[in-house]
Amino acid sequence: MAGYVSDAVIRRLPGYYRHLRELEAAGVTQISSQELGKRMQLTPSQIRQDINCFGGFGRQGYGYKVSDLKMHIGEILGLNRMHRMIILGVGNIGSAVANYPTFNREGFETVAMFDVDPGKIGTRVGNVPVYPMDELENFLGDNKVDVAVLAVPVKAAQETMDRLSACHVGAVWNFAPTDLHHPDDMIVVNVHLSDSLQILSYKMAHAGEA
Amino acid sequence: MAGYVSDAVIRRLPGYYRHLRELEAAGVTQISSQELGKRMQLTPSQIRQDINCFGGFGRQGYGYKVSDLKMHIGEILGLNRMHRMIILGVGNIGSAVANYPTFNREGFETVAMFDVDPGKIGTRVGNVPVYPMDELENFLGDNKVDVAVLAVPVKAAQETMDRLSACHVGAVWNFAPTDLHHPDDMIVVNVHLSDSLQILSYKMAHAGEA
Repeated sequence: MAGYVSDAVIRRLPGYYRHLRELEAAGVTQISSQELGKRMQLTPSQIRQDINCFGGFGRQGYGYKVSDLKMHIGEILGLNRMHRMIILGVGNIGSAVANYPTFNREGFETVAMFDVDPGKIGTRVGNVPVYPMDELENFLGDNKVDVAVLAVPVKAAQETMDRLSACHVGAVWNFAPTDLHHPDDMIVVNVHLSDSLQILSYKMAHAGEA
Repeated sequence: MAGYVSDAVIRRLPGYYRHLRELEAAGVTQISSQELGKRMQLTPSQIRQDINCFGGFGRQGYGYKVSDLKMHIGEILGLNRMHRMIILGVGNIGSAVANYPTFNREGFETVAMFDVDPGKIGTRVGNVPVYPMDELENFLGDNKVDVAVLAVPVKAAQETMDRLSACHVGAVWNFAPTDLHHPDDMIVVNVHLSDSLQILSYKMAHAGEA
């Protein structure tokens, strides 16, 4: 396995995995660094450097075996493990996550959703039951949960985060548009949709400058 | 204004904007690079370097004026312009974008949504009317649109992208979990939720290693 892997390389790993999955689905078995680079808008030497960085692979002149490389990157990403996930908040975002087509095959199984709305409690989103938010602590006491998805309104986000950390939930995927306080040993990844839209805005404002 | 601004700095701009907005809302008028760095988990020297990079500000020992810095960063991000936005696909993601609380005040106004589902056509999401997807070209012919949000199923994504580029839509915010072909002069920013979840998976798999 690799030694030090930089943040920039880690950020690119899901892109590699997505492209390799698409190539595999299209029946492509081998790919050169030139072809993969063209697809991913990276230079061939960048591709070779990245792939060396997470453990080498491929032989000069032969390119990479798509299925091997995909499996290897999937392992580095931890996608060969099963994660039990709960979703807090059954709004549009929570429902989108519950219905997302690929999370399950990437090792993330949603086992329960929670909401405060009596109209939602007792229903199901896809196959997933919706429980009262009040039962969160009981549920976490009785069930192994690896990841909590935070999709509650921003005003409830910190309080919900505090309840999760009190129950020692190890990882949170946060969609609330704010940076939340959490214990140092809790893994938190934020999806700030505003940030992404602002990057789009930046690119529009500065188009044609460079 | 600044000269060359690196991708890494650009990626951090929305974070600065978000924290400064929260500070302003909390009534904070001045902030030092130490305090801002602690909030953003960056070193004070990183903060000073970033802020110098986009045009200097603040005086040694006084820190930064929160409202001035926020306004300045907002301008760099292009948030002082109004953008007319349409949303393609009225599923969970499209509805989440339409209902997102902050996009409007950041200069993104959703003017129309489009879907193929007869059950959705003619309804409204919030205040936004839902039109038949067939009317996309007519609408784009009659109305100025700056940004299209692509929230259709993956199998319809490339075809929809092609229709947008044929109508010379300048910018696309893509939520379909695939990288789409588009003209070089079209600005495309992808939100790949799977990528973010895989980064969480990576961090869980490698927790405690470093």
